[in-house]
Amino acid sequence: MRPIGVVRSAEPDPPRHWSVSDLEGELRIDPRYREALADICPGERIVVLFVFHRSPRFARRHLTQVPPTRNEPRGVFSTCSPVRPNPIGLSVVDVLRVDGATLKVRGLDMLDGTPILDLKPWKD
Amino acid sequence: MRPIGVVRSAEPDPPRHWSVSDLEGELRIDPRYREALADICPGERIVVLFVFHRSPRFARRHLTQVPPTRNEPRGVFSTCSPVRPNPIGLSVVDVLRVDGATLKVRGLDMLDGTPILDLKPWKD
Repeated sequence: MRPIGVVRSAEPDPPRHWSVSDLEGELRIDPRYREALADICPGERIVVLFVFHRSPRFARRHLTQVPPTRNEPRGVFSTCSPVRPNPIGLSVVDVLRVDGATLKVRGLDMLDGTPILDLKPWKD
Repeated sequence: MRPIGVVRSAEPDPPRHWSVSDLEGELRIDPRYREALADICPGERIVVLFVFHRSPRFARRHLTQVPPTRNEPRGVFSTCSPVRPNPIGLSVVDVLRVDGATLKVRGLDMLDGTPILDLKPWKD
């Protein structure tokens, strides 16, 4: 797995989940993939897969975790915790503008500098 | 990245996309993650991230591809092609039953033997 780009955002403390975020920022994709971005259009929703690059390494004690919105521990596969066996995150964002290999988007919940692994259509 | 489990399916030619699939099969998760599955319930929809383990290595010629449902090439990030820079797939399946560390599910579009990377709530 190798990053295809990086998230750029001016917000040091982004919302905890894309579904409650209207934070804007950029997905700066490596220009070598520019042709692969050709059909992504403003107004579209896309899935972003990324690396939770600042998370601690997963250990047995992380099998269940207490989500910030609950009082009880839940199995990690029923949470969106960044501390998971494979530290892959999923967000759904709205594309506002495409400028070369940079996508201006709304709905970020990732940290600035987050490595991007893939972009996919939302329910193609 | 290390698989957390494997897809088991009796269908050698699964539907091309989860959104048009009612194929049933199993997600056999490594028993060491059993506790992490504790809150996944029958009736729930979950996101499955997996490896396109049978795909050829991504090359420049794959930047655009002609999807099976279209006549024109599209940028790979606007397709669900298994041939992508990072070969990660995303499916959404319905949980029918949980038996130990095995989830019986409906909506498979993966091949038998597909390595599973992560399970997430669908729009938590």
